[in-house]
Amino acid sequence: MNEFAARMERARASLGAQGVDALCLSVGSDLPYLTGYRAMTLERLTMLVLPADGEAILVVPELEARRVDMSDGTFTVRPWSETEDPVAIVADLLGRVSRVAIGDETWSRFVLALQSADQDRSWFPAGDLMRTLRIVKSGAEIAALREAARTVDGVADQMSTVQFSGRSELDVSREFAERTLADGHDEILFAIVASGPNGASPHHEPTDRVIQHGDAVVVDFGGLQAGYSSDTTRMFVVGDAPYGFTDAYEVLQAAQAAATAHVRPGVTASSVDAAARDIITDGGYGDLFIHRVGHGIGMDTHEHPYLVEGNDELLETGMAFSVEPGIYVPGEWGMRLEDIVTVTDMGVESLNRSHRSIRVVP
Amino acid sequence: MNEFAARMERARASLGAQGVDALCLSVGSDLPYLTGYRAMTLERLTMLVLPADGEAILVVPELEARRVDMSDGTFTVRPWSETEDPVAIVADLLGRVSRVAIGDETWSRFVLALQSADQDRSWFPAGDLMRTLRIVKSGAEIAALREAARTVDGVADQMSTVQFSGRSELDVSREFAERTLADGHDEILFAIVASGPNGASPHHEPTDRVIQHGDAVVVDFGGLQAGYSSDTTRMFVVGDAPYGFTDAYEVLQAAQAAATAHVRPGVTASSVDAAARDIITDGGYGDLFIHRVGHGIGMDTHEHPYLVEGNDELLETGMAFSVEPGIYVPGEWGMRLEDIVTVTDMGVESLNRSHRSIRVVP
Repeated sequence: MNEFAARMERARASLGAQGVDALCLSVGSDLPYLTGYRAMTLERLTMLVLPADGEAILVVPELEARRVDMSDGTFTVRPWSETEDPVAIVADLLGRVSRVAIGDETWSRFVLALQSADQDRSWFPAGDLMRTLRIVKSGAEIAALREAARTVDGVADQMSTVQFSGRSELDVSREFAERTLADGHDEILFAIVASGPNGASPHHEPTDRVIQHGDAVVVDFGGLQAGYSSDTTRMFVVGDAPYGFTDAYEVLQAAQAAATAHVRPGVTASSVDAAARDIITDGGYGDLFIHRVGHGIGMDTHEHPYLVEGNDELLETGMAFSVEPGIYVPGEWGMRLEDIVTVTDMGVESLNRSHRSIRVVP
Repeated sequence: MNEFAARMERARASLGAQGVDALCLSVGSDLPYLTGYRAMTLERLTMLVLPADGEAILVVPELEARRVDMSDGTFTVRPWSETEDPVAIVADLLGRVSRVAIGDETWSRFVLALQSADQDRSWFPAGDLMRTLRIVKSGAEIAALREAARTVDGVADQMSTVQFSGRSELDVSREFAERTLADGHDEILFAIVASGPNGASPHHEPTDRVIQHGDAVVVDFGGLQAGYSSDTTRMFVVGDAPYGFTDAYEVLQAAQAAATAHVRPGVTASSVDAAARDIITDGGYGDLFIHRVGHGIGMDTHEHPYLVEGNDELLETGMAFSVEPGIYVPGEWGMRLEDIVTVTDMGVESLNRSHRSIRVVP
């Protein structure tokens, strides 16, 4: 049995175990995880209808049907033409099915239309079911994450000797993106370059702000390589670090190392967050660490497990996630340090290995 | 009153007219259309709650709150921390509101969770309401579309003297993307390079197929410049065109010109499709034109109006959309020719103006 067929069998078994009759998947990574096919995120509906006991059928716009590879034989295709109603087609394929799990990222307009099409049918989020399938990575998946991490590590090192001062955030961001594509990524999903006070906004988008001597610069970038995600953050400083920065960075680096070292099978997701947060709080920066310590990663940059207070799920061998504490001083500067790690039988492997010291650039 | 305040007032008026009590907007372009702020398409919920009569509040992840510009004063921000439940916050803000319109692209998991939070509340797709606001563009919006079109026209012309043969689709695609960014775009959304038989798949993704002498190559590319979209398709042929191609192209070009000339205020959207389809059918290629003739464009690459059989909405001055007939011969080749046009009082203006002949490249 090939990998997609095996995954589809596991999905069917999970449906049965959860008392759900069918699974409907549209945009996002759940669909390519099961079939190898990724729907375009556009207004024409693509939807896999997978009954617990029945044939899987992919409803797809006719003009995209030629993109679909059905050679695995795990599903058939039902193309719909421009004058057909795809919601009616899906509702019809569901037949007398009454309990349906639907992919988390499906557009609301399709969910609401499917609900209207048959008001006796119940719809549930497919997230819990898909999470059980995707949260533990296979050896091949870990290898793909490792390769993606290797690429961004190389780019982070290349960029440590490059001029930052006098260039805009956008310009530097573009150089990170271009080098990452040139070195093996298929797609860049983000290249945050947040300089000076902009560093205090964790999800800052690069602007035309010109980077200056004395700026600390948060660089957080990643994308897709062979279908799997990279995501790393390294700190750059132009010449001299701003006041208070170096002391705080010692604390941050210790927190990131402690959280990573804490990772092993059987500990809770929340305890990894706590391992970093305790050190940052002890250092006096607790109020400035305004996000969870990490997120799972795989085909999506953000997926389960989430390393956050209150999440008591237990880590297992094969899970992969970021460890990325940060300290943010509004109006002044920000800092974050991020590696992707995977849980091993022995404890933890850090997939990102480029050095974690401050990178002083011209 | 600034533009965002005016748009929000129009949205409130539409809510009242449609008997809906509140509007909830999340990912996609509806939110930035009203507020200037675009939510990140990630697992943390961002949602604007806009009551028909009441204060607009943007529920946003705390770590993204610093990205929000509230200087217009048209809404306030309710940041939520990592241990709060944003769905509960939105449900609470809705209070006794019973009929809510929700943005079309909102993730299904949030819609289902909001439905569960209060089963007496009814949810409707916000698409119809937002469409009435966004479908007619202002002068500034048309000017932005014109500038974006000018950039891709320039790149199409630059690429008409570049070597295609011996290079992969991916390599040529990347050159289109890089030149378009260099010439003014902020983001590339797609750069389809579909060579030889791959051209028969309208939404083909570039592969490592090496382009050869005798290939016809469909190039369909676009992105965002100052928040507005470009989208154009031109045909390239490497040396000599394949058998039957040139004759079909004469028909295609005539169909595209006729459909464009047909555009004026008061005609139906479907009649533009028919104007192209009639010519292609008369030419004997009707079965090979497997998609509608066009889609609206603005902040989104695909939006209302859709130029498709069965859509009898009337065109109005200020609407903007693509005119892009195509002919696809499975296993052989494909062709498409696409301009963005806008409806004017006088009839039509084509925003793309680069020449529409076959571009013969080495």
